[in-house]
Amino acid sequence: MKSRAAVAFKAGEPLQIVEIDVEEPKAKEVMVKILYTSVCHTDAFTLSGNDPEGVFPAVLGHEGGGVVVSVGEGVTSVKPGDHVIPLYTAECGECKFCLSGKTNLCSAVRETQGKGLMTDGTTRFSYNGEPVYHYMGTSTFSEYTVVNEVSLAKVDEDAPLDKVCLLGCGVTTGMGAVKNTAKVEEGAVAAVFGVGAIGLAVVQGLVKANASRIIVIDLNEDKFELAKKMGATDFINPSKFDKPIQEVIVEMTDGGVDYSFECIGNVEVMRSALECCHKGWGESIILGVAGAGKEISTRPFQLVTGRVWRGSAFGGVKGRTELPGMVKDFMNGDIDLESFITHHLAFQEINEAFELLHKGESIRTILTYGE
Amino acid sequence: MKSRAAVAFKAGEPLQIVEIDVEEPKAKEVMVKILYTSVCHTDAFTLSGNDPEGVFPAVLGHEGGGVVVSVGEGVTSVKPGDHVIPLYTAECGECKFCLSGKTNLCSAVRETQGKGLMTDGTTRFSYNGEPVYHYMGTSTFSEYTVVNEVSLAKVDEDAPLDKVCLLGCGVTTGMGAVKNTAKVEEGAVAAVFGVGAIGLAVVQGLVKANASRIIVIDLNEDKFELAKKMGATDFINPSKFDKPIQEVIVEMTDGGVDYSFECIGNVEVMRSALECCHKGWGESIILGVAGAGKEISTRPFQLVTGRVWRGSAFGGVKGRTELPGMVKDFMNGDIDLESFITHHLAFQEINEAFELLHKGESIRTILTYGE
Repeated sequence: MKSRAAVAFKAGEPLQIVEIDVEEPKAKEVMVKILYTSVCHTDAFTLSGNDPEGVFPAVLGHEGGGVVVSVGEGVTSVKPGDHVIPLYTAECGECKFCLSGKTNLCSAVRETQGKGLMTDGTTRFSYNGEPVYHYMGTSTFSEYTVVNEVSLAKVDEDAPLDKVCLLGCGVTTGMGAVKNTAKVEEGAVAAVFGVGAIGLAVVQGLVKANASRIIVIDLNEDKFELAKKMGATDFINPSKFDKPIQEVIVEMTDGGVDYSFECIGNVEVMRSALECCHKGWGESIILGVAGAGKEISTRPFQLVTGRVWRGSAFGGVKGRTELPGMVKDFMNGDIDLESFITHHLAFQEINEAFELLHKGESIRTILTYGE
Repeated sequence: MKSRAAVAFKAGEPLQIVEIDVEEPKAKEVMVKILYTSVCHTDAFTLSGNDPEGVFPAVLGHEGGGVVVSVGEGVTSVKPGDHVIPLYTAECGECKFCLSGKTNLCSAVRETQGKGLMTDGTTRFSYNGEPVYHYMGTSTFSEYTVVNEVSLAKVDEDAPLDKVCLLGCGVTTGMGAVKNTAKVEEGAVAAVFGVGAIGLAVVQGLVKANASRIIVIDLNEDKFELAKKMGATDFINPSKFDKPIQEVIVEMTDGGVDYSFECIGNVEVMRSALECCHKGWGESIILGVAGAGKEISTRPFQLVTGRVWRGSAFGGVKGRTELPGMVKDFMNGDIDLESFITHHLAFQEINEAFELLHKGESIRTILTYGE
């Protein structure tokens, strides 16, 4: 099967729109026709060459929505025509992790996924006869992609895929971190570091959890308007203070916040996020992806006096189990996705979408494959 | 009132047994005749001069048991003759922290306690007319000491104070960290780094929690016998491996432990303790007190993939509420304190007790004031 795809041939270079070959799905695999995708900072991180797991050439992309085209042997949970959202965090329901009841980090396809391969150790993509690697088990930057059955959430056919595709990463990560990882309770005081898509989703999650105060911290004050519209109550630009921002937050909250969320991927900010937490019970959750080799640090006294340091991947959400419900919540008006969509472009304009994200001008750009 | 005391006149020097003057308790204060005390690493740490909060001259000591001699104005919860254990973690029941239901870190006397003073900013101890500082709000190295009412747990008069005095620090810290901080569940796999008094108490707490596997890690293999007697199942000497000990533990536990406890105060070991935790849910609890300025570090990926980093002070135990019950548990045979007591000495031999601790030859030495 021929497919239009935006291939990352080399780190640090723009994607190239080319026609690749996509093989039919093998056992337990599914071919999906992607209708919409968006671009997330993680795609940009890998494309930059800073991701130690990045392999090239590859079809990037992990926030998308599409329709099942064909299924491999033994696939039972989806059939051609089903609407699906690819999941970079699979859910097999059978591994030690899925059965633990404590995590969403399914191990079923983890090892090969991290190497850009399907579970049999090969790729379904090729260009001019040379293999092209998969990415995060999703590769939504190809009109036709092949993913594992366990990496697909089947969603309501009436849901607009050009919006619910956002549940494939950022929005789910932020909202899930509030609900599943932090388990924020009513009346809590929270700080959100960085208000890109994930930070805004955290804000939305906090509003749903009835947090009493939602403090957002960002160097780019242009982002505060949208954060305010979504429910943030306090706005801090750290560059306007001549002391560590954690001290500012501790002072303005009479001792610190109950929960903080790092949505940037900066290890210094991760430290601030921990240290702005209230002694005795404040919990800080890391959502951002740090550069290779970067380390977080703090004095152990911060933890001994009751702060808790956690992280969250895909918001602790089990995709196949929970995404259909989140899609329903969106359709019932309980989740706002529209506010995240700042731009629309055609798929072939994908490098422009990266540019907008890089410059901080977009939250999410929806790319449409078209006919 | 004249009192025999072991005064720390200067950092790094042995204590001196001298006769000091102890003032009568002021409002909300209580004078206690200490009958037994033991020596903990925290006393040694402060005496060494490495504790940035250490002030001299001071009466150290925070693991003790005694009898109320007299009470200041407004004291209602204890009366002369009551048996008490001084608490370095007070419990006022009224501050933001006590009312939170989330922590044992009462703030009532915290600020002055950290400076070696009573809440009015003065000391009750003096030597040759010069003030001598308090320590941790307890100062059990004086036959007569003055503490705040909120810093005293009243215990059963039938309990042997020469044993239950150990509940003033180490044993409670370790057992509480398992129950209150980690909330270890039946069948859990756990690692305990360092098997001094606190580590052994963690082992005991894990046995009570029905942990399925209790791995202890220590450079001193002499400690393994007692750890085994108390219920540890696996024994590791890190010096016998040529790779990071976290890797060894991850391998021997099929992915890592459910809970780990750092009971040493070494920031490198704290990292190992975190990184030997199981992806997805493993929690590491820091109990040890690190040197001034020392920092813990790890890659944020460790947390993003589901590990949790916590700390615990006094095992999360609210002393006045919970210690009487722990004393009862000891009397019913549900808590073993005898195994921690490796030596008995007279109070005036206190420097020898520090020496035994320093050389790793003792777990706890009970010092008796005598008549």
